[in-house]
Amino acid sequence: MQLIDGKAVAAKIKEEIAKEVQAIKAEGGKTPHLAAILVGHDGGSETYVAHKVKACAECGFKSTLIRLESDVTEAELLSKVEELNQDADVDGFIVQLPLPKHIDEQKVIEAIDYRKDVDGFHPINVGRMSIGLPCFVSATPAGIMDLLAHYNIETKGKHCVVLGRSNIVGKPVATLMMQKSNPGNATVTVCHSASENLKDITRQADILIAALGVPEFVTADMVKDGVTVIDVGTTRVPNANTKSGFKLTGDVKFDEVAPKCSYITPVPGGVGPMTICSLMKNTLLAGKKSIYK
Amino acid sequence: MQLIDGKAVAAKIKEEIAKEVQAIKAEGGKTPHLAAILVGHDGGSETYVAHKVKACAECGFKSTLIRLESDVTEAELLSKVEELNQDADVDGFIVQLPLPKHIDEQKVIEAIDYRKDVDGFHPINVGRMSIGLPCFVSATPAGIMDLLAHYNIETKGKHCVVLGRSNIVGKPVATLMMQKSNPGNATVTVCHSASENLKDITRQADILIAALGVPEFVTADMVKDGVTVIDVGTTRVPNANTKSGFKLTGDVKFDEVAPKCSYITPVPGGVGPMTICSLMKNTLLAGKKSIYK
Repeated sequence: MQLIDGKAVAAKIKEEIAKEVQAIKAEGGKTPHLAAILVGHDGGSETYVAHKVKACAECGFKSTLIRLESDVTEAELLSKVEELNQDADVDGFIVQLPLPKHIDEQKVIEAIDYRKDVDGFHPINVGRMSIGLPCFVSATPAGIMDLLAHYNIETKGKHCVVLGRSNIVGKPVATLMMQKSNPGNATVTVCHSASENLKDITRQADILIAALGVPEFVTADMVKDGVTVIDVGTTRVPNANTKSGFKLTGDVKFDEVAPKCSYITPVPGGVGPMTICSLMKNTLLAGKKSIYK
Repeated sequence: MQLIDGKAVAAKIKEEIAKEVQAIKAEGGKTPHLAAILVGHDGGSETYVAHKVKACAECGFKSTLIRLESDVTEAELLSKVEELNQDADVDGFIVQLPLPKHIDEQKVIEAIDYRKDVDGFHPINVGRMSIGLPCFVSATPAGIMDLLAHYNIETKGKHCVVLGRSNIVGKPVATLMMQKSNPGNATVTVCHSASENLKDITRQADILIAALGVPEFVTADMVKDGVTVIDVGTTRVPNANTKSGFKLTGDVKFDEVAPKCSYITPVPGGVGPMTICSLMKNTLLAGKKSIYK
């Protein structure tokens, strides 16, 4: 069993980005600039945004954090989005999700100029990804593909089973895994809460991508020997023994599943760091206007 | 074994559309107007477009057929697309594919105003479909869903295997089948030319959707008893015994597969008529401005 070290891969990619940014700056080019809007003070969101700001610094990007209180109106948020759309210095920006209940998340996502949508959530980027056109691929699926590539894990013709059909992980990673590309070119099955005979299917997986958000859902009896497991789950499970009062827990029962695996990602330190890293890659692409002019 | 009669279902849906159009006209509303651009004189394309024009008449729509010679330049075609984008009387339009090699098909698709893109091929409609937002769903996948609904074929939790990963059938129908909807909510596997152990997977299918474009690819040993088979293939295979000189042939070896099926679509008369019918449904939605203003 080999542990997939997302932290190390992410560090290496960020180093490469930093080198390229240095070269851009040396030639008098524009420093890539990522802005993030954070609404309210949700613990998880605070942590994610802090990691993103830190990653920007590591890459040599400029970053701007815009904080809005949780009682901000939808109109005020949309007006801030429009301001960032118009700001020529901002190459890409994100609105950290989830948003408070009184705000229509989808409306906010669609208000973002797709050319600055480095999260890859706008319908144009989702559609272009599905068709196989250049676009901002959403960060977690892109990070998973980078991990598979880094460890030279064969995907062509293999059976990849995806647990979960969310718009930000399950569906896009399924699409990427089936495209005629490398990594990719896999036979892909998507399972979810309504799936019957789940275990019969997961036991067929050469590559299992768990993105349900149900802590320790995948048990040893659900996988075959030699499987590669990518654990996208990051649920904060209350825990009295940690300083923070919770423990970040994946969708996979790591201790019992790991011995059966060829490769497995830990939580934390697997997919998580890669997600932030993909956001940095998208920001660099936005800065260089590589995808959209 | 029950034969799925796409021709009958399509006729029924077109009747319903015609009634609604009659009511719209009676109230002084606008007659839905579909335009089609046909480049060159490919036999298949000529037939498809003729069927679409006929279906418009059956539904009470206005239709316009614009013919361009096969040596039309890309710029001339794009200028015609722009003309239709601007024409307030045209509610929706299609550019019949395939286009001559010297024209960039994707560029033409993206030039169509997504609000008039009744084929559902524009990235915005593809992305919105994937996310689950109101949009023009592309015609063949939508027609397949309508057939499953009409025959009350249970899809929830069932294993649906899709053969083929094209942008216009395989990928979108896979997405529709996995969404939390009815029909839908299925476990979905997408197979393609690179898939290993194909037969092991197709034999698991409760619902098999064949969209490879390889005549008679699916044989009896590839399916289990009681399967529902949807055959999307429509290859023109040369045949000396027919008046036209060819025989429209599906992806399924019908004679040997049919006896094992609960339900099966014939070719012709299965998915084909439904595809045109879905285009009519989209045109009505466009005419009523039900999806986009």
